[in-house]
Amino acid sequence: MTQSAKRFAAPAIDTLPDDIRARLLAVQEKSGFVPNVFLTFARRPDEFRAFFAYHDALMEKDSGLSKAEREMIVVATSAANQCQYCVIAHGAILRIRAKNPLIADQIAVNYRKADITPRQRAMLDFAMKVSRAAEEVSEADFAALAAHGFSDDDIWDITAIAAFFALSNRMANVTGMRANDEFYLMGRVPKQ
Amino acid sequence: MTQSAKRFAAPAIDTLPDDIRARLLAVQEKSGFVPNVFLTFARRPDEFRAFFAYHDALMEKDSGLSKAEREMIVVATSAANQCQYCVIAHGAILRIRAKNPLIADQIAVNYRKADITPRQRAMLDFAMKVSRAAEEVSEADFAALAAHGFSDDDIWDITAIAAFFALSNRMANVTGMRANDEFYLMGRVPKQ
Amino acid sequence: MTQSAKRFAAPAIDTLPDDIRARLLAVQEKSGFVPNVFLTFARRPDEFRAFFAYHDALMEKDSGLSKAEREMIVVATSAANQCQYCVIAHGAILRIRAKNPLIADQIAVNYRKADITPRQRAMLDFAMKVSRAAEEVSEADFAALAAHGFSDDDIWDITAIAAFFALSNRMANVTGMRANDEFYLMGRVPKQ
Amino acid sequence: MTQSAKRFAAPAIDTLPDDIRARLLAVQEKSGFVPNVFLTFARRPDEFRAFFAYHDALMEKDSGLSKAEREMIVVATSAANQCQYCVIAHGAILRIRAKNPLIADQIAVNYRKADITPRQRAMLDFAMKVSRAAEEVSEADFAALAAHGFSDDDIWDITAIAAFFALSNRMANVTGMRANDEFYLMGRVPKQ
Amino acid sequence: MTQSAKRFAAPAIDTLPDDIRARLLAVQEKSGFVPNVFLTFARRPDEFRAFFAYHDALMEKDSGLSKAEREMIVVATSAANQCQYCVIAHGAILRIRAKNPLIADQIAVNYRKADITPRQRAMLDFAMKVSRAAEEVSEADFAALAAHGFSDDDIWDITAIAAFFALSNRMANVTGMRANDEFYLMGRVPKQ
Amino acid sequence: MTQSAKRFAAPAIDTLPDDIRARLLAVQEKSGFVPNVFLTFARRPDEFRAFFAYHDALMEKDSGLSKAEREMIVVATSAANQCQYCVIAHGAILRIRAKNPLIADQIAVNYRKADITPRQRAMLDFAMKVSRAAEEVSEADFAALAAHGFSDDDIWDITAIAAFFALSNRMANVTGMRANDEFYLMGRVPKQ
Repeated sequence: MTQSAKRFAAPAIDTLPDDIRARLLAVQEKSGFVPNVFLTFARRPDEFRAFFAYHDALMEKDSGLSKAEREMIVVATSAANQCQYCVIAHGAILRIRAKNPLIADQIAVNYRKADITPRQRAMLDFAMKVSRAAEEVSEADFAALAAHGFSDDDIWDITAIAAFFALSNRMANVTGMRANDEFYLMGRVPKQ
Repeated sequence: MTQSAKRFAAPAIDTLPDDIRARLLAVQEKSGFVPNVFLTFARRPDEFRAFFAYHDALMEKDSGLSKAEREMIVVATSAANQCQYCVIAHGAILRIRAKNPLIADQIAVNYRKADITPRQRAMLDFAMKVSRAAEEVSEADFAALAAHGFSDDDIWDITAIAAFFALSNRMANVTGMRANDEFYLMGRVPKQ
Repeated sequence: MTQSAKRFAAPAIDTLPDDIRARLLAVQEKSGFVPNVFLTFARRPDEFRAFFAYHDALMEKDSGLSKAEREMIVVATSAANQCQYCVIAHGAILRIRAKNPLIADQIAVNYRKADITPRQRAMLDFAMKVSRAAEEVSEADFAALAAHGFSDDDIWDITAIAAFFALSNRMANVTGMRANDEFYLMGRVPKQ
Repeated sequence: MTQSAKRFAAPAIDTLPDDIRARLLAVQEKSGFVPNVFLTFARRPDEFRAFFAYHDALMEKDSGLSKAEREMIVVATSAANQCQYCVIAHGAILRIRAKNPLIADQIAVNYRKADITPRQRAMLDFAMKVSRAAEEVSEADFAALAAHGFSDDDIWDITAIAAFFALSNRMANVTGMRANDEFYLMGRVPKQ
Repeated sequence: MTQSAKRFAAPAIDTLPDDIRARLLAVQEKSGFVPNVFLTFARRPDEFRAFFAYHDALMEKDSGLSKAEREMIVVATSAANQCQYCVIAHGAILRIRAKNPLIADQIAVNYRKADITPRQRAMLDFAMKVSRAAEEVSEADFAALAAHGFSDDDIWDITAIAAFFALSNRMANVTGMRANDEFYLMGRVPKQ
Repeated sequence: MTQSAKRFAAPAIDTLPDDIRARLLAVQEKSGFVPNVFLTFARRPDEFRAFFAYHDALMEKDSGLSKAEREMIVVATSAANQCQYCVIAHGAILRIRAKNPLIADQIAVNYRKADITPRQRAMLDFAMKVSRAAEEVSEADFAALAAHGFSDDDIWDITAIAAFFALSNRMANVTGMRANDEFYLMGRVPKQ
């Protein structure tokens, strides 16, 4: 455990409010382990609730973007922000959702060289601009997305995901949040 | 209204869920106008609820940082991200909370030259690093804060505020969110 | 007063050469106070004379650019250079010359989102390139200006103003030049 | 296959000079496949010979750096240069040489957060400076390495590896060199 | 002649005001040719007068910095700004004033590797910070200069020269100002 | 001699392997002096052989690029990397190969303002992108070169030269490799 991780260590699970403990147990039940993002945020129950409500609103609901595409945005922007937790954990989710064991590493290293469609490339170009230079986003950027059939609501979704992980990446980098070992191999080999 | 602002125009107020309409009316009652951030986010009720819950958890509760100090973080990082809404609206709030008509402009232009204490300078140095290069935050940065008496919980607060406005700034820049005219003068002249 | 400001404190007014003292008194008479840029440069009479002669040649004479437009260039480029004195003092002058209490803050934070004409936007795009990457200015940039009706002499003016404030911003940042308190409110409320 | 990869497609193997064909067959024999870097460079026999002679002189001979440490330098600097081939292929080699299935992904995303020793951290700090800002390397950087026991020959090795992959990364990015599918899983699961 | 140079071509010499024509003739008399900076600025007599008055106040008067040291500042900062006229013309002057045929090229390429004293290195480190990031200049930078014996007036001089050439470099780059052929060889071979 | 140069001083010539000593003597015979790059690399015979084999494959053989054009690539990219040895030594070679005493300084300071053809400008634009941001090279860049008649093999050559000097520049900057005094004047005055 790094010094940052010790500094912001997770509270003991039995000291947590009921709803937060319940969410931890549910994710443990489903995944077989508790991803560290849940443990780190548990230090602050109100922020925990807001963070995951926001996350679920963006990543779990219906959208013009597929779930795999949304994870592509997370992986590409989190790699630019050098966030270990987000690249490795969401890389795993991307592999599973895209049913593609190679795509996450390709997008993390250089999304411009990844095996994605031109539409997905346009989506990631925009997401990267939101992540790294949102102050320069202009009508020309919207037009490039519209040319690939993205609606205004799709644009909002791309923006909101890139913006939400701008927050997550910073929290993870400062708190020294580690990707659980389980994530590294997930989606790389056929489930047994 | 810019093209972006039209693209992501606020929904009609009578189409909104009750809780969101209630919050809009409450803020209108308190401030005399509805800040545009409420109108823009109203397009997405679930995101609205998570966004403001997160905001309030960071900016309204008790903390080792004063409310004015928290607004300093918002203004400094939002200026680096060139976010019109956040610099102008939170600049107004900072002037009011610090009871200082000059401080917001000073911090927005160059926080290193602003009339702040060495402790506040250390706080803003850290917040700026979280905002612009969180991947490089190290134990040396934590030590610099500890030397000014900041606790680990204070460091979390600084981080979380800089991270939350990394999200807000991106949403505001892409949606073309405008600062309401009322904010520009607020806190500059004695209230009548 | 910051340490830098003390380091480069203004000389006593009665030690100044006659022409410089006269200029200080004239500006005091006209404005009701002596802007700090006059006091700081008074340390070096020859540089004072050259600096203000250059300033007046660019900012006061007739030009294809209105006086408000010239101040827009000052505010936009000085904000990019994080110059407290220039953004706040010339922001005041811009508000007055444009008769618009909002425009200076908008341009200082993100000129791409300010309420300006497309012609003014092209002017500021060029001025920012001169300020931040003049080595890359090319015929394509001149063509973009010509498309908005700017003449070669207008282009010279935009360039020279951005270049002159590249000098001013550096002098003000190193000498710790402070914006006088009077500037902050100027042009924000109707003159009484 | 991307357009770049087609543009710089490998020549037919039976058109190659004997020594180059022999090396391709040897690596095929040893690894079970021919890594694409061999195929791409085969287009230019003289450059192929010089490239691999240089590579082997740095990566295969005895050195004060372990083979795993040398691969760490490759992965960290290639990630900064966003080189798909090098990060994924040498990530595989690093996992094998370090007998650690997690280390390559950690270093690729943010080497500052990876599970490495302080000595390895100093090595990578220096390698990254060579890769990204060699013009600023100074005696202070050498002193930081000496403090961890690195000799002048070790410093040469770190420098030469970072420099050689500065070359490799650029060739791979422009030629659209793809990481062979086999690399992605190598070193992640026990060899059967 | 490039397109920019044609765009901002020098006016016919007999159309110039007397004092400006006199200065051109004086410099022609002294140097054997008229450096292009005089011809380009002649387009604007008031700016010409202010520009050269400022230049002479900084570069010709007595100062704690030798004339060669002042030219070092010009060459180092103008190289960072990629200004052909200033690097080549002032490189010539530097060679002559330092009586050193190698120094200008060394400083232009990488002043950190040039054959200069530690005091001159500190002077150029500061000048480069003024030129490229004046907004970050702090007391620590002044202390580094004081440690080498630089007075506050010396610091002003370093700052003012870096600031003045921030202006000059931008004017030269936009106007396409060319270094006269005579400058390239000047100071490289013994005068005959 | 700087500290770095001492740290990586050349081995005594009589301790070198025969083939390397022979190459040193040959270049001494031809040029009248031994360029320092040969002495520095002699420390590592295997790397010496690979380095010069690679160099000669790129710079000496037949190519769609003239030898002068290849040296332009070296000078432009080495200037961006602030490499004293490469800019000054290859600047000399460029002057000789182009039979133009001005071209090297022009390209070193700002290749966009140099007296080169539009085709050479396109070549250098691409080389600079390879040198500074190869990860962003795309089909649009190849198309820009094709429009000037560059073949795929020419593109490989431009890329490989920019990539090889990315390596060389880093080695020279870290080892403190100095340009021999002889290079500074070479090609500036008619050979006697």
